[in-house]
Formats: sequence, C-alpha cells, structure tokens
Amino acid sequence: MDLKHYIATIENYPTEGILFRDISPLMANGDAYSYAVREIVQYAMGKDIDMIVGPEARGFIIGCPVAFELGIGFAPVRKPGKLPREVVTADYEKEYGFDTLCMHADAIKPGQRVLIVDDLLATGGTVKATIEMIEKLGGVVAGCAFLIELDDLEGRKAIGDYDYKVLMHY
Amino acid sequence: MDLKHYIATIENYPTEGILFRDISPLMANGDAYSYAVREIVQYAMGKDIDMIVGPEARGFIIGCPVAFELGIGFAPVRKPGKLPREVVTADYEKEYGFDTLCMHADAIKPGQRVLIVDDLLATGGTVKATIEMIEKLGGVVAGCAFLIELDDLEGRKAIGDYDYKVLMHY
Repeated sequence: MDLKHYIATIENYPTEGILFRDISPLMANGDAYSYAVREIVQYAMGKDIDMIVGPEARGFIIGCPVAFELGIGFAPVRKPGKLPREVVTADYEKEYGFDTLCMHADAIKPGQRVLIVDDLLATGGTVKATIEMIEKLGGVVAGCAFLIELDDLEGRKAIGDYDYKVLMHY
Repeated sequence: MDLKHYIATIENYPTEGILFRDISPLMANGDAYSYAVREIVQYAMGKDIDMIVGPEARGFIIGCPVAFELGIGFAPVRKPGKLPREVVTADYEKEYGFDTLCMHADAIKPGQRVLIVDDLLATGGTVKATIEMIEKLGGVVAGCAFLIELDDLEGRKAIGDYDYKVLMHY
C-alpha cells in the first residue's frame, strides 16, 4: 500500500516556508490506518516491548493502537501542566521553537523495554527529549517508529545509534 | 474487571476543589487498557459505525484503538490552530472555563455513522460541541462512549436522547 497517497501536503503551515505533512486523511481511512499501525506492530514484534511511549497528540493516534494490538500499556509524553501527578521533564528544541516535555515519574518501571511511537521525525527534538526521560526513569529504549521522516531535517542524528523505523520519507 | 482499580484520584487538580480522575494507570496496564477498549468496541458492534471521532488528547487514547479494532477511520477534534486544513468549529463551556473546538471540514462525509469516544463525560460541553460539528458535516451520531462519567455534573443532559455508554461512574 502506498501510504503517501493518504498524506495531505499543506504549504506555509504552521509558518511561512514550511511544507506540513498532514496525516489526517490516513487516519480517516480504515484500511490505510490499519496498514500503518500493523507495519509498526510488525517492527515491534521480537523486540520484547513492555510499553509504548508517544508524544501528544499525534503520537497517541499511532502509538495507542500499536499498544492495544500488542496487548501492552501506553504512556503519554505531554506538555507541561497536562499530567496530574509527579513528572520528569526534558527541554528540547523543536522545528518551530522551544518547549518542555513531561512524563509521569511512574510511567516506566526500571528495566522496562520501550518503543517510542510518533507521527513525525523532523529535527528529532521530541524524540531526543523522550529518550532522555525514559532513560531517567530506568527504561530501555528498544526502538522508535515514525510514520514520516523529513529527511533534510536530519532528525536521525538525534536518534543516533538507537534502532528506528520509518514508513514514509519526504 | 474492576477498572476503577486503575484510576488515580488527585485532589485539587487542575484547580482547587476539583477531584481529578487520572486514567494513566489504566492506559499503562495492557490488560486493563485492552479490556476497556474492547468494552467500547463491543458497544459499537451492530451500530454500523463508519468513523470514530475523539477530542484531543485523551479522546485519542481510547478512540484510536477502538477505530483500529473496528477497522475504520478516526477523526480528531482539536483546539484551534492544530488542524492545517479548512475546519468547522463549535464553541463550548467546559468544566474549567470556555473554549472552541475544531474538526476538518472533510472529516465526516454526509450520511456517515459516527461514534464519539472520549475519556470523560463531565459537564458535557465537549461532547455537545462535537455532536454539533458532526451534524454540521452531515454525519449521524450513532452513539457516544466514555471511560468515566462524573454523575453529579449531569453531562448526560448535554447528550440528551443520543445513545451513550459509560464504563465507570463517579
């Protein structure tokens, strides 16, 4: 299946000069959505994953059905003020500015093997901060999976030697 | 399964006097998460649902695996500025203030049967605005499903005669 058929490209969003890749047509199509989730589930098989971690909000859209299909739990990465209990945080530089991310301090138990799932690998700021938090909690980052990588932004440098999987390159 | 075992209660969050019901321990437990999603899938069966609609961000956590398990699409309800293409909007009063919600104008095709899924039914402002947008787009609201209803807030009045399902009452 050519998943790119289900990606809408919007010029100058959210800011001038940016080509935004919109995954909502993919999510809206049951066959494409199911195919994309199953590709990531396939990647996760054999890695002995205990938890899926996904950044808000589009990371939830892909990561949650992956967790469900694997029969494991999901831990959200959220912006400050969204998680009600004790958190760990990490600062990061993102494509369109700076921000802080949070996870619950009990989201990952020491030794748990984690797969990070997000819609987009751009500059890699989000995934780098997510790896930092998971490791702060004693988790093991067993891999990362993205629907889309924007190759020119070189987010793979932020991932370094961690294993990762991408379904579409732009 | 007693799902309430997986709900954390936080006092005075996000504001003084509010008892916040935190679903993150439920999401973190593969068995509880799977059970909750399957209960909603069970409710959806036989309703001939074409699309799942869920408000950001916790609505994604429940609604997306429900859509995946049913093999259908998911359309997000988001805050202003988050959806890159043409939107429809609805204003609403929520438990902790006022806000506007958006859906893509092509998210629902006329005649499609929609199940709204969210984590929480509180005052019902979000679900009422979501119903308004779905119907503006010509969709048919075939039902609503929530993990939790806060009974005292009487959100069921906002739902009126629409069919709805709740897994936990507080």
